[in-house]
Amino acid sequence: MDAGLFTANNVWMMVCTALVFFMHTGFAFLEIGLTREKNTINILFKNVFIICVGLLLYFTGGFNLMYPGDFNGFLGFGGFGLHIGADGLTPEYAKGGYTYWTDFLFQGMFAATAATIVSGAVAERIKLSAFMIFVVFYVGLVYPIAGSWQWGGGFLSTLGGDDAGFYDFAGSTLVHSVGGWAALIAVILLGPRIGKLDENGKAQAIPGHNIPMAAAGVLILWLGWFGFNGGSVLSADPATTSLVLVTTSLAAAAGGVSAFFTSTLMYKNFDLTMFLNGILGGLVGITAGADLMTPFEAIIIGLIAGVIIVLGISLIDRLKLDDPVGAITVHLICGIWGTLAVGILGDKAGINQFLYQLTGVATVGVFCCLSAFIIIFTLKKTIGIRVSKEEEIEGLDIHEHGMDAYPDFRMNQH
Amino acid sequence: MDAGLFTANNVWMMVCTALVFFMHTGFAFLEIGLTREKNTINILFKNVFIICVGLLLYFTGGFNLMYPGDFNGFLGFGGFGLHIGADGLTPEYAKGGYTYWTDFLFQGMFAATAATIVSGAVAERIKLSAFMIFVVFYVGLVYPIAGSWQWGGGFLSTLGGDDAGFYDFAGSTLVHSVGGWAALIAVILLGPRIGKLDENGKAQAIPGHNIPMAAAGVLILWLGWFGFNGGSVLSADPATTSLVLVTTSLAAAAGGVSAFFTSTLMYKNFDLTMFLNGILGGLVGITAGADLMTPFEAIIIGLIAGVIIVLGISLIDRLKLDDPVGAITVHLICGIWGTLAVGILGDKAGINQFLYQLTGVATVGVFCCLSAFIIIFTLKKTIGIRVSKEEEIEGLDIHEHGMDAYPDFRMNQH
Amino acid sequence: MDAGLFTANNVWMMVCTALVFFMHTGFAFLEIGLTREKNTINILFKNVFIICVGLLLYFTGGFNLMYPGDFNGFLGFGGFGLHIGADGLTPEYAKGGYTYWTDFLFQGMFAATAATIVSGAVAERIKLSAFMIFVVFYVGLVYPIAGSWQWGGGFLSTLGGDDAGFYDFAGSTLVHSVGGWAALIAVILLGPRIGKLDENGKAQAIPGHNIPMAAAGVLILWLGWFGFNGGSVLSADPATTSLVLVTTSLAAAAGGVSAFFTSTLMYKNFDLTMFLNGILGGLVGITAGADLMTPFEAIIIGLIAGVIIVLGISLIDRLKLDDPVGAITVHLICGIWGTLAVGILGDKAGINQFLYQLTGVATVGVFCCLSAFIIIFTLKKTIGIRVSKEEEIEGLDIHEHGMDAYPDFRMNQH
Repeated sequence: MDAGLFTANNVWMMVCTALVFFMHTGFAFLEIGLTREKNTINILFKNVFIICVGLLLYFTGGFNLMYPGDFNGFLGFGGFGLHIGADGLTPEYAKGGYTYWTDFLFQGMFAATAATIVSGAVAERIKLSAFMIFVVFYVGLVYPIAGSWQWGGGFLSTLGGDDAGFYDFAGSTLVHSVGGWAALIAVILLGPRIGKLDENGKAQAIPGHNIPMAAAGVLILWLGWFGFNGGSVLSADPATTSLVLVTTSLAAAAGGVSAFFTSTLMYKNFDLTMFLNGILGGLVGITAGADLMTPFEAIIIGLIAGVIIVLGISLIDRLKLDDPVGAITVHLICGIWGTLAVGILGDKAGINQFLYQLTGVATVGVFCCLSAFIIIFTLKKTIGIRVSKEEEIEGLDIHEHGMDAYPDFRMNQH
Repeated sequence: MDAGLFTANNVWMMVCTALVFFMHTGFAFLEIGLTREKNTINILFKNVFIICVGLLLYFTGGFNLMYPGDFNGFLGFGGFGLHIGADGLTPEYAKGGYTYWTDFLFQGMFAATAATIVSGAVAERIKLSAFMIFVVFYVGLVYPIAGSWQWGGGFLSTLGGDDAGFYDFAGSTLVHSVGGWAALIAVILLGPRIGKLDENGKAQAIPGHNIPMAAAGVLILWLGWFGFNGGSVLSADPATTSLVLVTTSLAAAAGGVSAFFTSTLMYKNFDLTMFLNGILGGLVGITAGADLMTPFEAIIIGLIAGVIIVLGISLIDRLKLDDPVGAITVHLICGIWGTLAVGILGDKAGINQFLYQLTGVATVGVFCCLSAFIIIFTLKKTIGIRVSKEEEIEGLDIHEHGMDAYPDFRMNQH
Repeated sequence: MDAGLFTANNVWMMVCTALVFFMHTGFAFLEIGLTREKNTINILFKNVFIICVGLLLYFTGGFNLMYPGDFNGFLGFGGFGLHIGADGLTPEYAKGGYTYWTDFLFQGMFAATAATIVSGAVAERIKLSAFMIFVVFYVGLVYPIAGSWQWGGGFLSTLGGDDAGFYDFAGSTLVHSVGGWAALIAVILLGPRIGKLDENGKAQAIPGHNIPMAAAGVLILWLGWFGFNGGSVLSADPATTSLVLVTTSLAAAAGGVSAFFTSTLMYKNFDLTMFLNGILGGLVGITAGADLMTPFEAIIIGLIAGVIIVLGISLIDRLKLDDPVGAITVHLICGIWGTLAVGILGDKAGINQFLYQLTGVATVGVFCCLSAFIIIFTLKKTIGIRVSKEEEIEGLDIHEHGMDAYPDFRMNQH
């Protein structure tokens, strides 16, 4: 491969790495925006912790757990730290798509994402120390092991033999549902926030305190998805990368518009939060098959994701689950939808593929639910996972951080 | 063309596409920041709607209306949806500057911009349903038809024969004034906000509610302009792209400094809003000829744009037009200035070119004013374009969206 | 060099230029977030001024003062304005890493950074006019002269002969400590804010008014550092650029985690501001040797930087110096640490290199302290550098700008 092509490929992958990093800003903004002012510092702290610790854990062992090289397909480990081979900086590595260092960093930026998804669902009531311990195990072990089954060349990738198997282009299942399942388990074990259910057990809206920040978060996430999906091509191949950006953006737009129409029909209201979550639903939905779909198929996936968002958020409420940012609907339900869609639409559609997809979803789901349950239940029975009633009412910022997010502004009491 | 060059070109164009997408975040921040808290959700809703619907409309028909292929030069249509040809992913397409998919997405990100400009001018009083219908027609039809006359190879591009004609590098006229003319018409038909004019008809300042967000919006727009102008080279040609980034940034800096000096002289005050709008004026001003100017000429264009900003905003006030964010001055007046500057400075300067520029400005102006008038006047006479007095006073957020942007913060009444 | 490689190199450098530009948004957010609401407009104004004037000054003379071509190694000047040579747009220029225009713009984006660092340290009490004059001299003369000694090929770069000398990859000393020394001098000459010291002279915390904005600022700065360090490779060489992004990100993560642990041990509190400043400390620390370190060495540099942050901020307080954003600790102390680390760890480690590093730190330090002192002391004795007591208490926004940053929100008095 000539130096120009290798360099162009690696440039694209570095740009995508930067964009995926920027998604953490988007997640932080979204989560802050949709929750109450009194827990803002706490949420920022969790997000910054996730990025830093996630990267360091991925350096320490995660990368070599997820990409162990030749292994039994279920569990392998390539050793602690990074081990650059003789060809790690040459076009021999990864078909010239990028260098070993870029490989690590791009994957490392992905790693922390799963935990960030959980952060939103458990916001405003989880004990910080418990959350930090959960992150260490989930990002350090669960995420890379599940990832190794598919992206590391494990058993899911060869369900149907050497050339066929589960397909998850950029992680509708391996990133988004990995986070989503843990969010579901955590929400069940934590219980709803004080005030979320009225005396009849009916879910009440707890309005987010900074909607411009939430909207900015969604736009930043969309921008970051250019790197999340665009980088998952693992080179700058013009045909595939540019198709992926088109399918990604059209699914996002369709998801937003569809959630907007659905929610306007259901609630006779122009609901901005639904619009925003619809965009995210479209993005998560297209992620498993962004390279397989035509632009038109991407729009269909987005439109369905938008409907799922509105119905899913309503369902979560009716199940009395308290998910302040809608993470379970966005990342888990739309993640499942997007993964199954690979069997229904696009280049790989077919009954066999659909069954591979179903197997992948179920296998990862069982593993993540079990892992998350073991970690969180153990924490609950030992150090506890929920802050005191007093702390929850007064806000985690004052109690855990001794700080106020906006000390010059006068606040309403609630 | 070798694969390395084609790939590098396409990478640059994808990066620019992402940057132009990010401009929508900048526009949203700017518009929110310069208006009142009670209309924040409404403005965010409009902006998110524009991005999503703009992209979908451009997919549906806009792209093929703007680039119809061989056509009569006035109106052509290449069919609904996207139609990738046999060479759409090869270096044969677009001289190897990018693929067909990148082409669509880059142009699609531009398409929504024109409507965003209007959004700022009509903020705080337009009825959401009327605005949404306006967007559909203006982004779906008016913008691509005007664009086809020049960028689609239409009659404006060959005013002086095959090799000469109107020139508009990245859209001082085709994007910014297209938005600006509609903003002007809409502002006239809507009338000023309640409280904008005192009993003597003198314009009063209505302060924006979040100036840090406005400033961030301008900085994000400047960043996005790296892609807006840099991508308009339509390849990563090192000589032209790097010149364009230099002229763009120097014009922005000069516009800001010039507006700062002018407003300080006129008002004896360090006016941040003028500084910020001066930057935008410089950016809009350089857009028509960013590839034709020396760095020094770019500074001159920016300096003049900065003066125009201060005088223009004062003029708009004296005309009793209510443009909450200064969109008419920034996008229309500076757009005209930048377009004419191509005839005065830079590689193409000359009397013939100046006349082509004037013709382009006037033709697009007449078409946009007529189109905008027909759409908005029809809306006014049918569903109405203005919210009720009560809604305007209490805020559009509560009435149209049932939501508050910052529910935890205590607000001043006004 | 083939066109593909040259184009890919230049694309990377343009992307890095855009990212360094975006750092100014990060600096502005950080500085606003960590100070009081009443001075927000003033801080934004300073930051926007620095970007615009910095770029124009760098165009006018700075670029040719910093890169004068062949010169005596101490002071040279290549003439006013930009002078593109015959090969400025060809691969002959700069070994094909980028064009002359990209060279100027990338370096120009760096230039303003030094002044931005000072801005944070002097916030909430410096007179705007004095600060603007300081910026003109410091960015226009001091920064480029110091830079010429090393990056312009001056005497520091050849301390040990043609092939050996001071090493500062991306500016731990040449950018960060250049800003940091001036921040120190300015803080001493200005004195602390009213209320910073209690009656016993003990430093009091003055909480920042918008912590989400501060956190976003740090994340944007980290993102921008991809360009700051990644672009300092001066090409897109896959091996070096990708290593640099890895060392940069790991040092940032390690700095954050280390500051978090250190501050939690010292203060029994999960201190978000320390976490954030730890990230910045890690970034500044790795900047001098980002291309020389292994990932593991980068983590060590970050871990030490994080400890330095916590101890340094406490030291600055005990010295009764008032640095509202921690700029002296982050940029000066960590800048020195990072520069010296090049002699201790990594490819160049050794006693000779350590002495070159010490010489560089000291030389630049003496020059910057003297220059900053002359400029600021002269300003103090002529127009004055500090606002009136009344203005400081009521806020600079109302007095200097006649504007309020958040007029719709109700504020606490303080």
